[in-house]
Amino acid sequence: MKLVRYGEAGREKPGLVDAQGQVRDLSSLVPDIIGATLSSESLNRIRQADPSSLPVAPAGQRLGACVGQVRNFIAIGLNYADHAAETGAAIPAEPIVFNKAPSCIVGPNDDVIIPRGSQKTDWEVELAIVIGERASYVGANEALNFVAGYCVCNDVSEREFQIERGGTWTKGKGCPTFGPLGPWMVTKDEIPDPQNLSMWLDVNGERVQNGSTKTMIFNIAQIVSYVSHFMILEPGDVITTGTPPGVGMGMKPQRFLKAGDVVSLGIEGLGEQRQRFVAYEDNPGAVDASKSWKGH
Amino acid sequence: MKLVRYGEAGREKPGLVDAQGQVRDLSSLVPDIIGATLSSESLNRIRQADPSSLPVAPAGQRLGACVGQVRNFIAIGLNYADHAAETGAAIPAEPIVFNKAPSCIVGPNDDVIIPRGSQKTDWEVELAIVIGERASYVGANEALNFVAGYCVCNDVSEREFQIERGGTWTKGKGCPTFGPLGPWMVTKDEIPDPQNLSMWLDVNGERVQNGSTKTMIFNIAQIVSYVSHFMILEPGDVITTGTPPGVGMGMKPQRFLKAGDVVSLGIEGLGEQRQRFVAYEDNPGAVDASKSWKGH
Repeated sequence: MKLVRYGEAGREKPGLVDAQGQVRDLSSLVPDIIGATLSSESLNRIRQADPSSLPVAPAGQRLGACVGQVRNFIAIGLNYADHAAETGAAIPAEPIVFNKAPSCIVGPNDDVIIPRGSQKTDWEVELAIVIGERASYVGANEALNFVAGYCVCNDVSEREFQIERGGTWTKGKGCPTFGPLGPWMVTKDEIPDPQNLSMWLDVNGERVQNGSTKTMIFNIAQIVSYVSHFMILEPGDVITTGTPPGVGMGMKPQRFLKAGDVVSLGIEGLGEQRQRFVAYEDNPGAVDASKSWKGH
Repeated sequence: MKLVRYGEAGREKPGLVDAQGQVRDLSSLVPDIIGATLSSESLNRIRQADPSSLPVAPAGQRLGACVGQVRNFIAIGLNYADHAAETGAAIPAEPIVFNKAPSCIVGPNDDVIIPRGSQKTDWEVELAIVIGERASYVGANEALNFVAGYCVCNDVSEREFQIERGGTWTKGKGCPTFGPLGPWMVTKDEIPDPQNLSMWLDVNGERVQNGSTKTMIFNIAQIVSYVSHFMILEPGDVITTGTPPGVGMGMKPQRFLKAGDVVSLGIEGLGEQRQRFVAYEDNPGAVDASKSWKGH
């Protein structure tokens, strides 16, 4: 199944993309696509519904982040051997774990705001894991049992904030709108081999990233298992799993995003995103990332 | 006001500590002590209630974390000059920002679980800031307007996971039960000078930390302002602000916690915590940190 959240930021409704590509309203079955919706039991209940019996959502609706109320938005660093090489970093011996602020999560096609004072805003196409069941100390052989599905994530990064401002990477990873998720969460049953998906990212129509999940250093099962040994993973948590080569920081000369740039990206089987990058000062109409969370 | 959450883990009720030290049930006014409860407007509504009109909670109730549904649990590293010195680190030029997994949050007196395989579980008494209003790009001169109040936090840390396992500090900071918060959140009006509070921590009755918030390198207003320039802070987010000297890692020889140890800690005006440390293997009855969140 492809699960979506559609409508105005902060008021998204849950939806299902049917076989014809139409969005069907799931409000009669679940309040939202959030942690509690993502258990096997809950997903099976949705699966049993006849899509044709559900109302068709109005056409042209904005898509929100495909998961709402994300609490722990975890990211894995340098998880593609050739991306590690382009950044000049050594291949990590264990997964590098860092956090993106949950308040940075936005819809897949929302504007992304270049932060105040930023000179080094960069892109990263990534496969994100959506956790469906509470996971603590789980082995790699059982780790996929705790996964609800996958989605595309643009792990937008400000390299000066990330690397040159002291301490951990946190400062350059969670700026407002730095976490587009979607267009939809695809349940894992529809992705039989998540380690063999092509992925790409274009800047203004020019292909800059062109990779495959098969070159991950640590695979999805290993990542879920590993992280679960350091923290409890909860339903609705998201782990974005690293990016293949082709980020701006790795180019010679380096290249970063400026207002007006358009970034589009996608992963085989998981859909596509498209973001216009806007200046902080010029975006009175830009999506307010904090509205994506209904919880407050 | 002193706001608390009391009752069984995962089913806490909101409460208010009255002038006599009794817990009064706030359920008739608010559903829980969470982000939405912490705006100035909402706190003023609670303030207007006559505590004597509210039911007294049954005696002997467990206290939960004083804030529920925390989404972004941020920590500031090496924020006391003399603690930086004891760890051998340089005084940071800018605040060091990292994350604790929100799933690690537990009540102030719950058992703390020494993680599987841990040899270096350590303590850190800290003042934690509770955010009351959404804050993005706020100046230090206005930053306290976005703060609801303060509480005690034991920023429990596993030093091998934090420092020797590669990447950022995340792995050693968010293990299950590593985030006791409370006993209560004290609203900021009751703490006129948060930069002059004595703080202490005892291990098995022996005083090991004895400091004051006056030796913070970056003060509370500067921290809120700084973090808000890198991410949107949302109501209910918690920022724990660093620890004074006296952690186990800084002792010669180093000293770490073992099953059976009891840690008690407190900050002037903010109350006290007491945790029994238990082995992962021996704690079938220990609090399940993930239950502290009602959201799922």
